[in-house]
Amino acid sequence: MSLKHLASGSSCPPLAKGNLRLYSMKYCPYAQRTRLVLAAKKIPHDIVNINLVDKPHWFMEKTPLGKVPLLELQDGSVIYESLIVDDYLDEKYSEVPLYPKDPYKKAKDRILIGDFDKITPLFISLKSQDILTVQASFDGIVKILNNFEEELKKRETKYFSGSQPGMVDFTIWPWAERLELFKYKDAQYVLPEEQLPHLLLWIQRMKENDAVRESYLSPDKHFAFLQTFLSGSVNYDIDN
Amino acid sequence: MSLKHLASGSSCPPLAKGNLRLYSMKYCPYAQRTRLVLAAKKIPHDIVNINLVDKPHWFMEKTPLGKVPLLELQDGSVIYESLIVDDYLDEKYSEVPLYPKDPYKKAKDRILIGDFDKITPLFISLKSQDILTVQASFDGIVKILNNFEEELKKRETKYFSGSQPGMVDFTIWPWAERLELFKYKDAQYVLPEEQLPHLLLWIQRMKENDAVRESYLSPDKHFAFLQTFLSGSVNYDIDN
Repeated sequence: MSLKHLASGSSCPPLAKGNLRLYSMKYCPYAQRTRLVLAAKKIPHDIVNINLVDKPHWFMEKTPLGKVPLLELQDGSVIYESLIVDDYLDEKYSEVPLYPKDPYKKAKDRILIGDFDKITPLFISLKSQDILTVQASFDGIVKILNNFEEELKKRETKYFSGSQPGMVDFTIWPWAERLELFKYKDAQYVLPEEQLPHLLLWIQRMKENDAVRESYLSPDKHFAFLQTFLSGSVNYDIDN
Repeated sequence: MSLKHLASGSSCPPLAKGNLRLYSMKYCPYAQRTRLVLAAKKIPHDIVNINLVDKPHWFMEKTPLGKVPLLELQDGSVIYESLIVDDYLDEKYSEVPLYPKDPYKKAKDRILIGDFDKITPLFISLKSQDILTVQASFDGIVKILNNFEEELKKRETKYFSGSQPGMVDFTIWPWAERLELFKYKDAQYVLPEEQLPHLLLWIQRMKENDAVRESYLSPDKHFAFLQTFLSGSVNYDIDN
């Protein structure tokens, strides 16, 4: 399967019978959520990368929103929205459960995932040239991360989901991976170790996780892509 | 249990041992989602109504966000966010399942629930005096409801969830119940029957459902409450 991001004028690669397929974009944190779950559960699948600024006609026919991640099942039906796709995979491929069995603990994990939604919009400031916007956003991120630090400390586990990463860990990881992008704005924008010791240890551990390594990109690679984005001529294949 | 909405200075009614409790507000559509699920599953519980503009101190201690619905479990732990609370109830009290067992069908239902999120903000226009805002919002609602009409037609079932209402039905119902509020803005704002025949039949059926009847309020009652809200002196107990 080509890693190149397919654009208008391309043909949809034929889906091998019995295969699960993820339509993705290499640098998309939402699509990465699903890549992490597929990897953690070792679910066989192929990946088709989509050029999101010049979408193929056949892709738009598969999905009304034209967004990734889009999961295509063996019979051609599709599921979208990262959290819904990931929950589907967790329920369908239940051998490696990523949520606690106990409904109360599962609800608590889902609340935690919801809390993280306050962080994701703050990453938009990476596209800003206004230093005050960047400063306020980074401060806002650290403030919210304090709650995650407290939660991890309270849980007394290596990962949010226990001794192994689970749905909380994989759902928030894509943004944790991109936190280091702020240092390209200014060297002062690094997570304060004295304030977030458990979370920084968690980041180290996550980087060593097999599922994370499959989709992990270094800060330099994320930054190179961001640069093409900011230049007005986004290049999804800069590193392919 | 008093139906009056408790405000600052009140005491928290003691929780009877072994009881499940919902902190609610009589006119809140999000809290109604949970009331519907509790009623449909016949889960014993008590309800404590909260004055949301003058919240009791003890309520804020239970929940960081200070929002309803808040579900308090038998041991005093709490769950919030309507969709998460409802999923918890569905998993914990699984005798009357509100989601399809099949993970794919469940994912489709969750996508449908997500689609409805585009409608809820348009209800804010009920607080507007600007006729163009109201018109645009009502048109927007009807446009989105077309998708729900199509879906219901495609499913060929009485309710979105089949022969009985399920999670999709109960999750979107609170706004369906409030749709008639638009007619107080102008008599022209009624759902077009020729355009939404299945959905209008669904609304009729839902009104006759036992669980719905437990929390149902007539358009006149919703409007009377809205009037107190618009007057700047909200009265949660106008009808208690």
